[in-house]
Amino acid sequence: MATENRVPAPRHRAGTTTLSVVHRKERTGIVALAVPDLEEPYFAELTALLVRRADQRGLSVLIQLTAGDHEREVNVANGTGLPPTDGLIHIPRALSVADLTRRATPGPLVLLGEHILVSPFTHVTIDNRAASYAATEHLAQVGCARVAYVGTRDARPSDAADRRFTGYRDAVAALGLAAEAELVAQVDAFTPDEGLRAVADLVRHGIAFDGLVCANDSVAFGALVALQAAGRSVPDDVAVVGIDDVRGARFTAPALTSVSPDKEALVERALSELERQIATPPGGNLPVEHVVVGARVVPRASTAR
Amino acid sequence: MATENRVPAPRHRAGTTTLSVVHRKERTGIVALAVPDLEEPYFAELTALLVRRADQRGLSVLIQLTAGDHEREVNVANGTGLPPTDGLIHIPRALSVADLTRRATPGPLVLLGEHILVSPFTHVTIDNRAASYAATEHLAQVGCARVAYVGTRDARPSDAADRRFTGYRDAVAALGLAAEAELVAQVDAFTPDEGLRAVADLVRHGIAFDGLVCANDSVAFGALVALQAAGRSVPDDVAVVGIDDVRGARFTAPALTSVSPDKEALVERALSELERQIATPPGGNLPVEHVVVGARVVPRASTAR
Repeated sequence: MATENRVPAPRHRAGTTTLSVVHRKERTGIVALAVPDLEEPYFAELTALLVRRADQRGLSVLIQLTAGDHEREVNVANGTGLPPTDGLIHIPRALSVADLTRRATPGPLVLLGEHILVSPFTHVTIDNRAASYAATEHLAQVGCARVAYVGTRDARPSDAADRRFTGYRDAVAALGLAAEAELVAQVDAFTPDEGLRAVADLVRHGIAFDGLVCANDSVAFGALVALQAAGRSVPDDVAVVGIDDVRGARFTAPALTSVSPDKEALVERALSELERQIATPPGGNLPVEHVVVGARVVPRASTAR
Repeated sequence: MATENRVPAPRHRAGTTTLSVVHRKERTGIVALAVPDLEEPYFAELTALLVRRADQRGLSVLIQLTAGDHEREVNVANGTGLPPTDGLIHIPRALSVADLTRRATPGPLVLLGEHILVSPFTHVTIDNRAASYAATEHLAQVGCARVAYVGTRDARPSDAADRRFTGYRDAVAALGLAAEAELVAQVDAFTPDEGLRAVADLVRHGIAFDGLVCANDSVAFGALVALQAAGRSVPDDVAVVGIDDVRGARFTAPALTSVSPDKEALVERALSELERQIATPPGGNLPVEHVVVGARVVPRASTAR
């Protein structure tokens, strides 16, 4: 059944490395959040949840917008130009493990989201490969044979984008779907503009496809507009799936099927891991945690056929 | 011409009262921002702009989500449970002038957005009456005669909602459009869910309308879905206008015409007014400023007829 495409259930794996926690003398009651932008609805929703849950724990959240810019991400990781805080939740795009290892002030840190899969830092994420695998499998289950993928990256590679593409590619191979290079469309950013452009290009080049996995919902919003402009009916001509399950997915025409990460779990785990680090006495060692939370396909009209 | 529906140009009016600024000894480099939520795209966009512009001024932004809840808004205004900050930008929903007058620690404060039109506190806003007047006038110009309004409030009255409805009502009277009570639909919140429900109700009750002014874009997103579900073509059967011009307005089907507030000006003025208060020596008096920034109709496919 289409609704049964479940990404593996939450698992919790203790890391093999440890983290030495350096402490400020006084608690500030402030945690910093580094996030690429708030115009992307997924980040806005995650940030809103984080601020609410932090508030319930007596913590205020200081927002730093990085635009995914490497220098800005490094500066926030180092606390450069920031007021004192108790710790940092970082949603990185361009940051490398090397950058983090070189941190000037290695205070409490949790990485949140899709970048940097394997690292000696505590990290909370969904399984991005499983998410796009489930999206592709869902399209196969509703009868799609030629499933296109919109959302490979070139100029700004990211672990998340790579993992999502891998999930699609693996599902295509495992399920015997058409595996053609022309079915894969690259974008410069996970935005509606880029989704619109990329799908308009597929159509203009005469590529035949009956399903579309979009790397995130924002890309899918643009894809739906491009399909409508091209006179392709969704879901009858082309079934469309996004990833992130942002609130707007319910208000596209037709409503967008999406892979829904467990956002509450992402935020709760990120905060509890950070609090654990904050509470550890100076010099204390903590195991590094790699936390993977669940995600599941939420079927809507865009794949109802 | 439809594109000429300009809301009055920015004006700047010195108030008659003054504000006594109380100072903390040390600057924190932090300003607090009280905002109802970040799931509403307009607030997310405004917050993103504010964080970026504050950063350029060397200020970090501490986010407080109030959900428009009175007690939370009062607490933030009083700094209750907050770390020390240099000042507060407050986007209130439920806060009254009396609440603000009773503030425990009357530090630097700027009110941003649509609530509390007249107050002895510095305030930066758009002209909400002019915005919905312009939206209604735009519909008249594209040939609508029976323009419905979605977005009056009852349970949670707000100055902004009231002013927007007044603008519609005034335009209807001035332009000789149909003025019937049944053309006005109430919502519980400015959300897509409520827009969908309210417009589905209008359709179900057999109310005839050929134009729709929505109190904001989120309401309009739901309205477009309800119209499509009812088999009404946009813009041919019903032309639709929103207010806020959020990014998603370009990616509805059809793209949504919206009244676009000058968000850059809102944010710049809010920050510069706050900085002026922060820089004023203890005991210094500053004139209260009531700043109104511009807004203009951005025509798109939802009214192209």
